[in-house]
Amino acid sequence: MLKKVAVFKENQFEDQSFKTFLVHDSAYMKVLNFNFKAGQELPVHSHDIEGQLTIVVLEGSGQFLGEAGTAMDAGPGDVLISDICEPHGIRAQSDMRVLVTIAPPI
Amino acid sequence: MLKKVAVFKENQFEDQSFKTFLVHDSAYMKVLNFNFKAGQELPVHSHDIEGQLTIVVLEGSGQFLGEAGTAMDAGPGDVLISDICEPHGIRAQSDMRVLVTIAPPI
Repeated sequence: MLKKVAVFKENQFEDQSFKTFLVHDSAYMKVLNFNFKAGQELPVHSHDIEGQLTIVVLEGSGQFLGEAGTAMDAGPGDVLISDICEPHGIRAQSDMRVLVTIAPPI
Repeated sequence: MLKKVAVFKENQFEDQSFKTFLVHDSAYMKVLNFNFKAGQELPVHSHDIEGQLTIVVLEGSGQFLGEAGTAMDAGPGDVLISDICEPHGIRAQSDMRVLVTIAPPI
């Protein structure tokens, strides 16, 4: 069965912290949507497991974060690819929606 | 190493057919960007192999296509999840950019 998820309708923004929404979870991949209000951030972190993830900016802008304070501008259509074991994070400059895909799923 | 790909800068539109751009290919996943001009379409197709794919609308609108002429509206932030072996396709109503993630990679 084809499954459609309207991420912009399903998830909101919150003042306290970024808001997570599980889009899909299967044996093959996990897909999450994070909404950040301007100034919110997913701090740099990593997991010591096999696999890769992508972070796709759907709306808004900010920065992809890496180890040792590194940062790259992140805007609509920008995709970050990272090993799951590599330090990565996100900081929002404007309200920002991103989609994270993890394969194989955590 | 973190890798950033600016999909909106890297890929263009073409009059003859939709334009494909390989964003990432690894042991874990394959990520492709397709740009469609209004009216262009990726016809319904499937591959008889294990795995799933997602189609994320980055910009523009159209329809996700399924078997027997089924169609679902597809706009920014909409995600289609499909088994690779399930018939799926896309049709663009306006100029449309989508990101396709396949895991495990074809």
